Amino acid sequence: MRIPGFQFSSIQAGIRYKNRPDLCLIFSDVPANICGVFTKNNIKAAPVIYAMEKLSSNMMGQAIIINSGNANACTGQRGLEDVREMINITAKELGIDESLIYPSSTGVIGEPMPMERIKKSIPELVRRLSYYGIEGVAEAIMTTDTFPKHFTTHIEVDGKRGTIGGVAKGAGMINPNMATMLCFIMTDISVEHGALKRALRDVVENSFNKITVDGDMSTNDTVMIMSNGLLNNDTIDDDSNYYPVFKDALFYVSYRLSKMIVEDGEGATKLIEVFVRGGESSRSAERIARAVANSNLVKTAIYGEDPNWGRIIAAVGYAGVEVIPDRINISINGVMVAEKGVATGLEDEAKEMLKEKYINIMIDLCMGSGEAKILTCDLTEDYIKINAGYRT
Amino acid sequence: MRIPGFQFSSIQAGIRYKNRPDLCLIFSDVPANICGVFTKNNIKAAPVIYAMEKLSSNMMGQAIIINSGNANACTGQRGLEDVREMINITAKELGIDESLIYPSSTGVIGEPMPMERIKKSIPELVRRLSYYGIEGVAEAIMTTDTFPKHFTTHIEVDGKRGTIGGVAKGAGMINPNMATMLCFIMTDISVEHGALKRALRDVVENSFNKITVDGDMSTNDTVMIMSNGLLNNDTIDDDSNYYPVFKDALFYVSYRLSKMIVEDGEGATKLIEVFVRGGESSRSAERIARAVANSNLVKTAIYGEDPNWGRIIAAVGYAGVEVIPDRINISINGVMVAEKGVATGLEDEAKEMLKEKYINIMIDLCMGSGEAKILTCDLTEDYIKINAGYRT
Repeated sequence: MRIPGFQFSSIQAGIRYKNRPDLCLIFSDVPANICGVFTKNNIKAAPVIYAMEKLSSNMMGQAIIINSGNANACTGQRGLEDVREMINITAKELGIDESLIYPSSTGVIGEPMPMERIKKSIPELVRRLSYYGIEGVAEAIMTTDTFPKHFTTHIEVDGKRGTIGGVAKGAGMINPNMATMLCFIMTDISVEHGALKRALRDVVENSFNKITVDGDMSTNDTVMIMSNGLLNNDTIDDDSNYYPVFKDALFYVSYRLSKMIVEDGEGATKLIEVFVRGGESSRSAERIARAVANSNLVKTAIYGEDPNWGRIIAAVGYAGVEVIPDRINISINGVMVAEKGVATGLEDEAKEMLKEKYINIMIDLCMGSGEAKILTCDLTEDYIKINAGYRT
Repeated sequence: MRIPGFQFSSIQAGIRYKNRPDLCLIFSDVPANICGVFTKNNIKAAPVIYAMEKLSSNMMGQAIIINSGNANACTGQRGLEDVREMINITAKELGIDESLIYPSSTGVIGEPMPMERIKKSIPELVRRLSYYGIEGVAEAIMTTDTFPKHFTTHIEVDGKRGTIGGVAKGAGMINPNMATMLCFIMTDISVEHGALKRALRDVVENSFNKITVDGDMSTNDTVMIMSNGLLNNDTIDDDSNYYPVFKDALFYVSYRLSKMIVEDGEGATKLIEVFVRGGESSRSAERIARAVANSNLVKTAIYGEDPNWGRIIAAVGYAGVEVIPDRINISINGVMVAEKGVATGLEDEAKEMLKEKYINIMIDLCMGSGEAKILTCDLTEDYIKINAGYRT
């Protein structure tokens, strides 16, 4: 898989893990328009602070250096100095200006970065850059992920085939508004900086911000996009006919990647889509969908293949939104288990449906036309095992 | 254990469980002042709807009939009719007016009550009333609880020994603002209705509303108190010197019972007290304490005896309250693991502390004087096992 004009590399720096890459680099042959969306957590990791500040004035970027195994969060002044040093060395090795390089980290919070190992690895990392290394990047950014996540699509712009591709990592600490989630998207399509930024924000809002694994939100969430323009199309701006085409494709890539993240939620065996409709507003529908998707009791019931709609309706009730109990309909994979707030007697049929891997919970509030959809996964013993032993 | 003037009984009605009591009765020899605090869930069970409506006009009560195994929630009109029928039969058997009897239920949501079995059991239930049956009531109201919860204390009022005693049940679906939590408190001390109501509300706010097991909130939460006045003391009102004495004792009973509920959280192995101080307000301190106490990642780390303060500070950061990261101190059982937002290097000492059963997480925001404390428990494989298989 190639994205024209982008090179990739990864290396085993030994930051935390053994026998797997944990440091990687994305490099554009020419400076690209760059923008990003970051965690809303009030505690932000050093690379997030650094990147946000830089992006508040810069519009261009050419490289992103990313490590897993250490989040470089809650590391104080030293954490920021470590970021600057990583950037500085990478700039020298690449022979480009520091201002064009962005950092990103994921992993354990509160430990200093093993800078000696990182510094030693950067020259070799740069030497390994190749147009074919995107899978290696997808692997290097993993923490407790069980499979690498990357996805690429193409659209025709000005009669030419443009490419949009991305890599992502997720696993635990995933919540609305992104969490322990990194995603880097690259495109050779020329998109004006403001249009790129708006498209990214809208797309993130409807993909990465609509997933949840455990309700926890990390200090490091990052989605960044680089557009290097090497397709040589007429630059797409808000008014361009190609803008909606580009945005739809960007959404497609983001949605696929966010689905992979939920599917790979720590210990997950099932992908659950909570769809709320008939809300007084889309906002209230979303609050309810989030309450259901974050309910440990709902998630364990789905794991146990138990169509326990009582737990679903209890979560609807505590979402903090007025509802009319005797109007609520609930379906599981198309089988209506509750109608007007009471049992339909179809639980055996629903139980059969719960053997499937993809579960759709449809809640109709029958009050208005507000809708929302949240993706999540089930909660299993393996989630506990992974997280009780993550650092040890 | 006796509470003067109160009789108790319990019976195996076979509502859901086998070989254990699941229907019980609390009866006062004389009509008592009664009040209650109920779930804030928008979906309320039939007995909750019934009791709340009755208490909006009535001030007196003489009996409470309670069942486990079936929540009588999301059961529509039929659920309310079932409540009325239970009350009606109980009134006849006791020979008192229906208006003096209150219902309460806990268990599975969305299934009709097995009324034949319940109706058949009520006459024998009434015959078994005894001054010594409170432990049987504590047992009959259990669902996935592993031990019965009751507690009694005494205070001197007008030179006489007054008694305050209560029973409670908890287990899963416990959250701030009470959840799948029932508590019934009885006292022979004469307390004026308004004073009783205010004392109960304050006490519940600082005990049952400060605990969380899994962040889920049930449709059935109920705390009720009956004061039958048989101590023949001068009735305590707001202005009485005995009011603070009574309220403190009521708090003591409630706090002990709420601690038992958390200790018996589904699958729990550790009791965790999250104490936040130095907040800009007690409200903001509480939001942070709740975010930490409800974090699956924090709860699994404690289970794994891992002093992973990075997860604690991440939860502080997403609580939705402004904090100053480089001021935050975090201690675990007195060992400071983070100072001014960065590691102290004392994790090994903290790890040792985590072998204990009672864990105190102290977070000092160093911003003001707001404080809050939330009790919770760890999250274990057994929570998943219990909840994936609860109905099957």
